[in-house]
Amino acid sequence: MEEIPEEECLEILDQRSLGRIAVVVEGQPQIFPVNYAINQRIVAIRSGAGTKLSHAPGSKVCFEIDEYDSSGGVGWSVMVQGIAVDATDAFDDVSWAARAAAPWPVAPGVKPFWLAIEPSKITGRRFRRRA
Amino acid sequence: MEEIPEEECLEILDQRSLGRIAVVVEGQPQIFPVNYAINQRIVAIRSGAGTKLSHAPGSKVCFEIDEYDSSGGVGWSVMVQGIAVDATDAFDDVSWAARAAAPWPVAPGVKPFWLAIEPSKITGRRFRRRA
Repeated sequence: MEEIPEEECLEILDQRSLGRIAVVVEGQPQIFPVNYAINQRIVAIRSGAGTKLSHAPGSKVCFEIDEYDSSGGVGWSVMVQGIAVDATDAFDDVSWAARAAAPWPVAPGVKPFWLAIEPSKITGRRFRRRA
Repeated sequence: MEEIPEEECLEILDQRSLGRIAVVVEGQPQIFPVNYAINQRIVAIRSGAGTKLSHAPGSKVCFEIDEYDSSGGVGWSVMVQGIAVDATDAFDDVSWAARAAAPWPVAPGVKPFWLAIEPSKITGRRFRRRA
């Protein structure tokens, strides 16, 4: 198992658009698939009203992407740990960066809110399966 | 967005082998990709020593699988919320069910421990993107 340096994690994050966010609701983590975009290390997500919007802002959340290619036997994951910010109409740098990114949700439903994740830690791991 | 009934969630879980577990470490959720198997509603995972093993047992965790087919525009996710149990050598029903399942980790490394998730809630959602 090899560690992926932060700079490469950011490149990988920049090349994808579908990940998952984990939010803790009264001690119980919940995981939701989300489309995202990244800008200046900030992960930006659009959201409707619901669990993510009511529990994420101001709290510790986790964002993750991963892939496993069974033919090549290569797997990797990138994890962003940090604090979620309701970036819908705030004027701080994190919120600006989030709104300047362009996440494009494929799921239906009105998503008028922006969530940003201000990372405390960006880590990645990769492995190659032995033949 | 359509809800997937629990029975169908269990069928979908049974057909896959790669998901993610979220574990909360001092208030900070972390997400790890894992191979799993399911038996009698119990999600079974094999683990080495590390974050999952030291923080999951006795705590609330979340397990999730998802898929998005961009050609058909169909996306879904299934989420198992519950309590993790160190099932390595305990004799309770949950641990037996976990050890009788056969998760096959593709990642390298010795994984001598078994984690089981005793579900409190199994939910799923599906959508079809409008053309």
